Amino acid sequence: MTYRSAEDYLADLEKRAVLPKGFRTATTNLTFVPKERPVKQPLPMRLNLLLLEEATAAFGGVFTRNAFPGAPVLLGKELLGEPMNRGVLVNNKIANVGGPHALEDAKELQADAATVFGLAASQLFVASTGVIGWSLPLQELKKALPELAQTMQSASALPLAQGIMTTDAWPKVRSRQLFGGRITAVAKGAGMIEPNMATMLVYILTDISLSRKSLREMLPRVVSKSFNSISIDSDQSTSDMALIWSSQRVACPDSVQFEQALEDLCRELAQDIVRNGEGSSHVLEVRVVGASDRAQAQVAGKAIVNSPLVKTALYGNDPNVGRVLASVGDAFGNLGLTLLPTAITLAIAGETVFEKGAFQLDPMKEERLSLAFSAAALPEKKAGFPPHENNVVFTLDLGQGEGAAVVWGSDLSYEYVRENADYRS
Amino acid sequence: MTYRSAEDYLADLEKRAVLPKGFRTATTNLTFVPKERPVKQPLPMRLNLLLLEEATAAFGGVFTRNAFPGAPVLLGKELLGEPMNRGVLVNNKIANVGGPHALEDAKELQADAATVFGLAASQLFVASTGVIGWSLPLQELKKALPELAQTMQSASALPLAQGIMTTDAWPKVRSRQLFGGRITAVAKGAGMIEPNMATMLVYILTDISLSRKSLREMLPRVVSKSFNSISIDSDQSTSDMALIWSSQRVACPDSVQFEQALEDLCRELAQDIVRNGEGSSHVLEVRVVGASDRAQAQVAGKAIVNSPLVKTALYGNDPNVGRVLASVGDAFGNLGLTLLPTAITLAIAGETVFEKGAFQLDPMKEERLSLAFSAAALPEKKAGFPPHENNVVFTLDLGQGEGAAVVWGSDLSYEYVRENADYRS
Repeated sequence: MTYRSAEDYLADLEKRAVLPKGFRTATTNLTFVPKERPVKQPLPMRLNLLLLEEATAAFGGVFTRNAFPGAPVLLGKELLGEPMNRGVLVNNKIANVGGPHALEDAKELQADAATVFGLAASQLFVASTGVIGWSLPLQELKKALPELAQTMQSASALPLAQGIMTTDAWPKVRSRQLFGGRITAVAKGAGMIEPNMATMLVYILTDISLSRKSLREMLPRVVSKSFNSISIDSDQSTSDMALIWSSQRVACPDSVQFEQALEDLCRELAQDIVRNGEGSSHVLEVRVVGASDRAQAQVAGKAIVNSPLVKTALYGNDPNVGRVLASVGDAFGNLGLTLLPTAITLAIAGETVFEKGAFQLDPMKEERLSLAFSAAALPEKKAGFPPHENNVVFTLDLGQGEGAAVVWGSDLSYEYVRENADYRS
Repeated sequence: MTYRSAEDYLADLEKRAVLPKGFRTATTNLTFVPKERPVKQPLPMRLNLLLLEEATAAFGGVFTRNAFPGAPVLLGKELLGEPMNRGVLVNNKIANVGGPHALEDAKELQADAATVFGLAASQLFVASTGVIGWSLPLQELKKALPELAQTMQSASALPLAQGIMTTDAWPKVRSRQLFGGRITAVAKGAGMIEPNMATMLVYILTDISLSRKSLREMLPRVVSKSFNSISIDSDQSTSDMALIWSSQRVACPDSVQFEQALEDLCRELAQDIVRNGEGSSHVLEVRVVGASDRAQAQVAGKAIVNSPLVKTALYGNDPNVGRVLASVGDAFGNLGLTLLPTAITLAIAGETVFEKGAFQLDPMKEERLSLAFSAAALPEKKAGFPPHENNVVFTLDLGQGEGAAVVWGSDLSYEYVRENADYRS
């Protein structure tokens, strides 16, 4: 797809963003003054609610593996054990991690929301994304709850996708229609995206009827091949989660076909996240084959997309191919894994650059590669829409076995440094 | 130390750079046209020789663990098994990794140099640093050997320190005098510095008499606490090595004292490398205590200095303390290690920012931290000398045991991205 303007992109998103039957959302704005830092004026924050019309047993979730998790993650893991769920309350701007009374604050907000919306607190996830270490502005958030109740709508997931954004430049929504029902998913995440759900909020909604057991078996498999196969800056956040709910309104004749649709959708959404990464100006897709197993293939792919030297070279449209194998050698060496240089083949944008134990380079090939990188470039300053969905594709055959994996990452640009040098103000 | 100009710094280096007895060096310039890439004019390269006047059995080395190592590393590991050694031949600009005939080229250069300098090829290390994937300009290098023979000198290690530089902004030399002899060491390394000797060439020379066995026991211990405790961009290179030789001219009355001096010297040199890192504008020193063991302390420290989010915040003089514990949580979570938030204390520049399970932040403290970061800033554009040797110090007590480690890293700046977006031209 290519887009010429934010309006063009939003029009397309509107078509994708239809809510499945049985879901409603609401979003409201508020302002607050952080206790921890001097600010010239109150900071804006958004509070969002996703609610199922009826509680469902068919829900599941995957959470960050970060050993310093936020209060919403601690609370969310507990809620997975509950028999029924109704949805999630999400704020941006503050991640509610490590502040004094973080867990108490999360529980108080959950309890208040349960009262306002007439449901059991144990049926409502809470989620927070933003600065780590600051406290939630609890009074302001509680005051916003009744207003939230007045903005409920069941037409579109787009307001939710917009409401959960932090440094994201555009909202991200993907959907699939099948069996007369649909799957619609929204995601948030800009920097700090790595395996294992890093600063990523993903909410997957479907009206197709899957059992709790099926959903919970499927979700980790799908996440492994999508959200856990992307990396923007190798940092895995304290806060992130992918949640799924089925409102069970439409029969599911074929759960294998459902899982495939879900996987395709999540893979698209994962690439959307990378494409929208802070200051990313290229999406790098690394297809690793010939590894001894899938895990080894993922190690190789992640090593490449996480190497600052590969990332800066890609930013400069510089086909510095030596750095690609050096980064794999680095990771494999640290893990005690072996590389067989004579068995390796590396192709970049369709050009073979390494085979039979040696780099295969010449000035013409370098020129073609540099042009291919330029053609896949994205503007560094994000204008509110993705101009295209082109990736730079590396194909690495390790020549050792049948293991394969695909991972996606971004380059490293001036803009990334600028955004992160002072994100909080 | 503070320096006001490159002349000021070089004058100080000259004092440090006295060669121990029994060592000579030579450096010469050449130009070449790479076969792999279009260039507007021939590229400059330097060839350097470090030679002991007499072959010694007292030598040792530590090499990169990268599983895609350069030809000089493969060759160098073999030479460790030889009874005697005379020195090393080093070129910059091309790393001689993965090119067609890389190993043959290294051996041919080694053999030719052995003939010109009248020594056994098996007694001469070779080393190459620079672009990965390109081939050495063998004819030009061979032609430069006789010229090299005419520039031998025994006064100073400074020409060698300058000759091995690639993107380094200034030469790096440290020395210690003891027992009537001395240890002098030079290092090269700018980006791509991580544990395990990444793009780092370190040559340690001493006239103090240590046995081969002592040197080889000492070197890994010392390297672990110095060169393997630094990281600039988490990439570990294909090419790097630390070599040590003793010319055995001066008696050593106390090998423990020698090892302490060697460790101090290497720690200084390691910090010099970070301070000179590509585009680094702060040196971050992370002191981890209270870990279950030293390895766990190193994991925590490395996680902090390698986090792009911590690095960009430091660049912006932004005390984004949440990111520090998030990065440790990320690493620990991935390794299945546990954090005990209530046992953790984190201090930054002398200010306690986390204790008793919660961040301790207020606007005044943030201001003081930001000022402390600014005071330790280095100019991003390196003017050929280090203006000061101030570090930003983080002290992290994990509250779990007695394990401790100190690691050093740098921030992540615009300049780093600029330098690496097209390093090869």
